[in-house]
Amino acid sequence: MSYLHNTWYVAAWDHEVSHEKPLARKILEEPIVLFRDSMGTPQAIGDRCPHRFASLSKGCVKGNSIQCAYHGLEFDGSGKCTHNPHGKGNIPTQAKVKSYPVVERHSIVWIWMGDPAKADPETIVDYSQSLDPQKRFVAKDYLHARANYQLETDNIMDLSHIEFLHSGSLGSDAVNQAVTEVVQEGRTVFSNRLTQNERLHESLEQRYNIPEGQKVDRWLDVRWDPPANMELWVGIAPAGTPEPRQVGKRIPFNHFFTPETEKTAHYWFATSYPRRMGEAGERRANEDIKYLRGPFEAEDLPMLEAQQKLMGDADFWSLKPILLPGDAAAVRVRRVLDQLIKQEQEAL
Amino acid sequence: MSYLHNTWYVAAWDHEVSHEKPLARKILEEPIVLFRDSMGTPQAIGDRCPHRFASLSKGCVKGNSIQCAYHGLEFDGSGKCTHNPHGKGNIPTQAKVKSYPVVERHSIVWIWMGDPAKADPETIVDYSQSLDPQKRFVAKDYLHARANYQLETDNIMDLSHIEFLHSGSLGSDAVNQAVTEVVQEGRTVFSNRLTQNERLHESLEQRYNIPEGQKVDRWLDVRWDPPANMELWVGIAPAGTPEPRQVGKRIPFNHFFTPETEKTAHYWFATSYPRRMGEAGERRANEDIKYLRGPFEAEDLPMLEAQQKLMGDADFWSLKPILLPGDAAAVRVRRVLDQLIKQEQEAL
Amino acid sequence: MSYLHNTWYVAAWDHEVSHEKPLARKILEEPIVLFRDSMGTPQAIGDRCPHRFASLSKGCVKGNSIQCAYHGLEFDGSGKCTHNPHGKGNIPTQAKVKSYPVVERHSIVWIWMGDPAKADPETIVDYSQSLDPQKRFVAKDYLHARANYQLETDNIMDLSHIEFLHSGSLGSDAVNQAVTEVVQEGRTVFSNRLTQNERLHESLEQRYNIPEGQKVDRWLDVRWDPPANMELWVGIAPAGTPEPRQVGKRIPFNHFFTPETEKTAHYWFATSYPRRMGEAGERRANEDIKYLRGPFEAEDLPMLEAQQKLMGDADFWSLKPILLPGDAAAVRVRRVLDQLIKQEQEAL
Repeated sequence: MSYLHNTWYVAAWDHEVSHEKPLARKILEEPIVLFRDSMGTPQAIGDRCPHRFASLSKGCVKGNSIQCAYHGLEFDGSGKCTHNPHGKGNIPTQAKVKSYPVVERHSIVWIWMGDPAKADPETIVDYSQSLDPQKRFVAKDYLHARANYQLETDNIMDLSHIEFLHSGSLGSDAVNQAVTEVVQEGRTVFSNRLTQNERLHESLEQRYNIPEGQKVDRWLDVRWDPPANMELWVGIAPAGTPEPRQVGKRIPFNHFFTPETEKTAHYWFATSYPRRMGEAGERRANEDIKYLRGPFEAEDLPMLEAQQKLMGDADFWSLKPILLPGDAAAVRVRRVLDQLIKQEQEAL
Repeated sequence: MSYLHNTWYVAAWDHEVSHEKPLARKILEEPIVLFRDSMGTPQAIGDRCPHRFASLSKGCVKGNSIQCAYHGLEFDGSGKCTHNPHGKGNIPTQAKVKSYPVVERHSIVWIWMGDPAKADPETIVDYSQSLDPQKRFVAKDYLHARANYQLETDNIMDLSHIEFLHSGSLGSDAVNQAVTEVVQEGRTVFSNRLTQNERLHESLEQRYNIPEGQKVDRWLDVRWDPPANMELWVGIAPAGTPEPRQVGKRIPFNHFFTPETEKTAHYWFATSYPRRMGEAGERRANEDIKYLRGPFEAEDLPMLEAQQKLMGDADFWSLKPILLPGDAAAVRVRRVLDQLIKQEQEAL
Repeated sequence: MSYLHNTWYVAAWDHEVSHEKPLARKILEEPIVLFRDSMGTPQAIGDRCPHRFASLSKGCVKGNSIQCAYHGLEFDGSGKCTHNPHGKGNIPTQAKVKSYPVVERHSIVWIWMGDPAKADPETIVDYSQSLDPQKRFVAKDYLHARANYQLETDNIMDLSHIEFLHSGSLGSDAVNQAVTEVVQEGRTVFSNRLTQNERLHESLEQRYNIPEGQKVDRWLDVRWDPPANMELWVGIAPAGTPEPRQVGKRIPFNHFFTPETEKTAHYWFATSYPRRMGEAGERRANEDIKYLRGPFEAEDLPMLEAQQKLMGDADFWSLKPILLPGDAAAVRVRRVLDQLIKQEQEAL
């Protein structure tokens, strides 16, 4: 499989990376260890010690370096060996590991998997509206999926599935008649979806404080950026509101995917409420994310893993999927990503 | 591995297939979903939705169709898409899945894995004597085996193994001196085995109401039909009875195997008593099948799975098995099946 | 992967091989069954019955032969079929399995994996000083490792790792300044290591009856013989003793590895005390081996298995390990073994 390399991938939530305990994470099939140095800055280097191929993530962080738990060599975030505890302490010139550019921004630790010279933090998508912890209380969670990351992207880019896969929580019978549009701006794809005159599932009515049975207009607007990062804004207004998106309340939900291997993916998801809401916002964000983990884990994951199994080693397009109008956004996204990967490979 | 395709395979016991819950079953490496339509007729179609490759068996049956749990497309037993819930509901011409001919007969749901045009229900072997639920109370069970289905066939076609593998239940010391014969009639192979002057294991004596220690003549006559379907009639008469098969009581035991993959198989087994015996027959059938599951699961399965492991990817004949007289039936069966597969492939 | 074949491998501890229960063990990827004949002599033959490829180790030992649990053929330690229980009992000439030369000596059952004609018991390394059960009370244990056996050898040949991997038990801060030497005598490699003025971990102080905080000189001298057999003598003397090895007490620890597959290994380890110590020696040996199993299982094994995973299918040298002075013994050992394997292959 081909991956896009010259791009920022989500590597972890900020709280997953610490000075106390190194984090082992495989990204694009490369074993990586993430840790914070003595200043708290996140660092990412190859997880395999060049001495005896021990797993550095089994070691501990000392100052700015991670100490190998096997024979004690230490490596800093640049991949340089900073200490050899044995004998006179000479450091072989070959004693280094790969270093990955890392940026921490708005709750996310980003990693650059391609040519470090091209790693420009300015190209990181701005998620401050949803994930800036200064302004928002952000509730975050993580799932590991035994499915290709693009199947995960398909899932978010075509939310018509909530009617069927999540009929007992997020969906309703009105979803299949939603008004949808797909908009592309450069490498960014928007999938906007407005469901009208919808009776929400009672668990959602309670969550949104909607009187039982009162109809609403609901929009689910997703922004996708490569490689597989999505921000979904869900908004609600009373049914029949002329310009619902102008007046309704809306809440952000982030969905980020990073390939672990061809057939497995990391999945980070979050929601947030404004800090000005105080404790109530914190409580709601935490409750919402706990509520969402239910269908994500019990309904989406098994389906995605079943898809992956049924696809086996086959390429998605080689299986000739039939296309429905609702696939427009997901297909557009696959085309954009395929094009970016192709361009990157041709430039080599 | 080559399979025989133009033949009826057992797909399920009748009670395994329902309108309420679709059954996912891999047969000859093909993922299939089985369900009953609104008339209760069993249907079998490919399990992979042609839209996004979701697993149809995770969905539910609506009327005559199964509804995909991911985006709601519906497919009937012919493999045709009968409903698209989205937008105007247009159905793409490519929206179809493979359909398999299915016949329900005498407790069994049969499936045809080859050219549908050749699927003639008249060629289904008649198991009415053992499995007709109108006439017999049939007790049925299922095991999944991590072994090739032909190893399973070998196991049933050479019952000399009961002396060694089942010495604490089904076997006895007299088995190795049995009088045996192999008879072939067309594609059908019979393995007839008569053990004389045998003291059965006490658990069998109790089961057959034989006074403790009284010797018997026991016959175990197996009929095999391709691909891997066997009916075993076990009979008992007092030791020394001149024509024991003419006068003794006999009970049927069915053993059906269907390849899941090269190295795994489905295993259905059953026994039955005449309905005229009333409640006693039902009780005995249920007790017998429960008793048999013991050695089948704890003794046969581990041995078959160890064989499979020791054989690895090797072809059976390439390992040059030594042949004993007792192998005559199993070898005949392998030759018949190999010949049928060869004929089928040459006809392509 | 290439293995050395014309050599004695450890196959089992003496107590693992019995007349009562055959032992299945895969060695150099060959499935083998070990058992004791009626005289108590250990025997080793291929585990796969040549009749139907059943696993002989699932059978039982009768006299000098092992009886196949499937159809009752019997094979003795020479691999010859000694009994066919069926019909007239004729034994096909092809009814035999591979036989392996086996020698029991000083608590170990040795197996020869190459040309039987070259199997000379005189070439077995003499472990009588550490493992002769007549003279020593020997405490023995076994672990299964999902790592290549040469990674295990590296682990023992470079004991500098105890400072880091076993800092809470076997190691101390003084280890990295040890005086080390590597000596080769023919195919045997010695790695001698003397740590001076060392404060042992308190759990070791208690074990060796050293007053709390009293400094010691400790030596760890390992002898390696191909393919992967090590005897480690650990000695202790008061810090500053002029010739500590001449006066201190020492205890043997044996570490034997045998490849199961390329990526898995058998690991036998032991310690012993002189029989003249009576019950106290027995108690100490047992306590020591129980204590050691802790770090071996909880610290070494996870690290070795992580190494193996990070190496994947790559050859050790192809990954260009950086070499530190402490690697001298482990590298010498790898060179000797590589050379022996090369010689053996060239002689074919």
